[in-house]
Amino acid sequence: MEIKDLGEFGLIERLTQILSIKDHSVLVGFGDDCSCIDIKGEKILFTSDIQLEGRHFIKRLIQPEDLGWKVVSVNVSDIVACGGEPKWGFISVGFPKDLSVEYVENIYKGIKKACDFYKMSVIGGNTTASDSIFLDLFLTGKTDRFVPRGGAEEGQMLMVCGYLGEARAGLEIAMEKGLNNLAGYEKRLIKRFSRPTADIHLSDRLSRYASAGIDISDGLVADLYHLSKASGVEVILDKNKLPVSPDLKRYCQQKGKDPLEYILYGGEDYKVVFTVDKRDTIQFPECKVIGFIGAKGEGVFLKDGSIVKKLEKKGFSHL
Amino acid sequence: MEIKDLGEFGLIERLTQILSIKDHSVLVGFGDDCSCIDIKGEKILFTSDIQLEGRHFIKRLIQPEDLGWKVVSVNVSDIVACGGEPKWGFISVGFPKDLSVEYVENIYKGIKKACDFYKMSVIGGNTTASDSIFLDLFLTGKTDRFVPRGGAEEGQMLMVCGYLGEARAGLEIAMEKGLNNLAGYEKRLIKRFSRPTADIHLSDRLSRYASAGIDISDGLVADLYHLSKASGVEVILDKNKLPVSPDLKRYCQQKGKDPLEYILYGGEDYKVVFTVDKRDTIQFPECKVIGFIGAKGEGVFLKDGSIVKKLEKKGFSHL
Repeated sequence: MEIKDLGEFGLIERLTQILSIKDHSVLVGFGDDCSCIDIKGEKILFTSDIQLEGRHFIKRLIQPEDLGWKVVSVNVSDIVACGGEPKWGFISVGFPKDLSVEYVENIYKGIKKACDFYKMSVIGGNTTASDSIFLDLFLTGKTDRFVPRGGAEEGQMLMVCGYLGEARAGLEIAMEKGLNNLAGYEKRLIKRFSRPTADIHLSDRLSRYASAGIDISDGLVADLYHLSKASGVEVILDKNKLPVSPDLKRYCQQKGKDPLEYILYGGEDYKVVFTVDKRDTIQFPECKVIGFIGAKGEGVFLKDGSIVKKLEKKGFSHL
Repeated sequence: MEIKDLGEFGLIERLTQILSIKDHSVLVGFGDDCSCIDIKGEKILFTSDIQLEGRHFIKRLIQPEDLGWKVVSVNVSDIVACGGEPKWGFISVGFPKDLSVEYVENIYKGIKKACDFYKMSVIGGNTTASDSIFLDLFLTGKTDRFVPRGGAEEGQMLMVCGYLGEARAGLEIAMEKGLNNLAGYEKRLIKRFSRPTADIHLSDRLSRYASAGIDISDGLVADLYHLSKASGVEVILDKNKLPVSPDLKRYCQQKGKDPLEYILYGGEDYKVVFTVDKRDTIQFPECKVIGFIGAKGEGVFLKDGSIVKKLEKKGFSHL
């Protein structure tokens, strides 16, 4: 059997069984946005995420500084989703030998800017020669309370900050047109893909109020399926409450596409979707309620007025 | 300017300048085998090391279980060199989609065996599809006292456990003959390359007695140059005290080569070379004194009776 027959999550399930963990200081192991260990009462979060040339980015379609910024942001987003603040990063990089020093320095300038913005440090690293560029960041963080995927309860509200689906539109524009001669809204959409900013402003409140949280990297619906499964509850999105970005709207009008498809299945948003008790929604005035938690069970549903339909468990697809 | 013009260490120096660290809980940043942070008085070590197909291993020349074992061992060796014990690992992996599930499971069985052997856990990970296999392990550890590269002092003894140079011979045999129809000594030498064991038994004593330590991955001389530079001292190897493995001797006889070249420049040994006061050498009865620390300065020298010559700063080379 090959990996593709088993799928990413089937494979991970098998592998984590092999690596059974017996250490009692490990509070959370595989299966969430972060792992969590106890060091003298401090809850330390661990996560890692890679940017691999040809897989996660195409060199001519992203500025090196943005790439450095992005690899930090995608990791910070995992830390934030668990209610944490990023602290110390360790970066493993691979570069072709004929890559220009200036290019690499610009990547590191982006990393440094992101470190300053998120108030964290990259404290060490490992360098290797490789055929294609990769940046593999391992990031630790701290949290007062770990916010898991599996804590959502019936009747709680589902919230998110800002717009979804823009990153996917930005990627499409960059793939089609490159980075030059773009309209303002096209540039903004591309920036959502190439230079995302994690919801760092939510960290502290998530650890205080959120029952569950997940970083949207695969797409809203795909990631909510993880939350649904981990929590053992149905998740209901309210179609009329999903915020539609004006830039995405304009892009979709131009292309004859439905913004909803981008919002539900876009991916790479690096925003945190989370659940809270209804009374605590006021703690997040800058965020929007986009749905709620239904009965015990599993599945992600879209409610449009009185009609509720189950959504397909998939990443982005063209209509 | 391209990376190859600057060299690995020149590049790292530039990049670490960009990432200036201001966090006071960072006790050791770039430039040693591990970084070290203070979490409520605990000294936590960070390191990472990758195994990249085509660069660090050739798939047909290593068993997947050995590969899993090796990626753990090479990281543990960095932790041990700083006087630490490994605790929690986080693994980032890339696999081609047509790789067999069995192959990947065998890698993880090797990782698990190594975790049990070194009394540590891999507590999380990240999976991505990639053209070639990579295993990037980030490993944390704990130490009571950080053993740096820069602590060696004049008159101290230089020690190492076991034989050097075998891994390089093993790699050569595997490259030339493959893994089948091998003599016993050839199999043992290959095992040194493909399934190295870190000096975990030294951790505790290194943190108590060693003034400096470094993991031998690039080769004895190349890594001693790092120790020499960091400590600001000359390092003198005693030719007649360097232990020569019987297997390496046999291989070199067969090939008409000089074992000394392998011992000095072999690389991939993953043994710790360390310095201690003369009176403390008895704390390491299973290790051998292979030299001593000379005057303030920089350089690695080979003493043969009364003749002392400076050794070239290089990795492995054929005579």
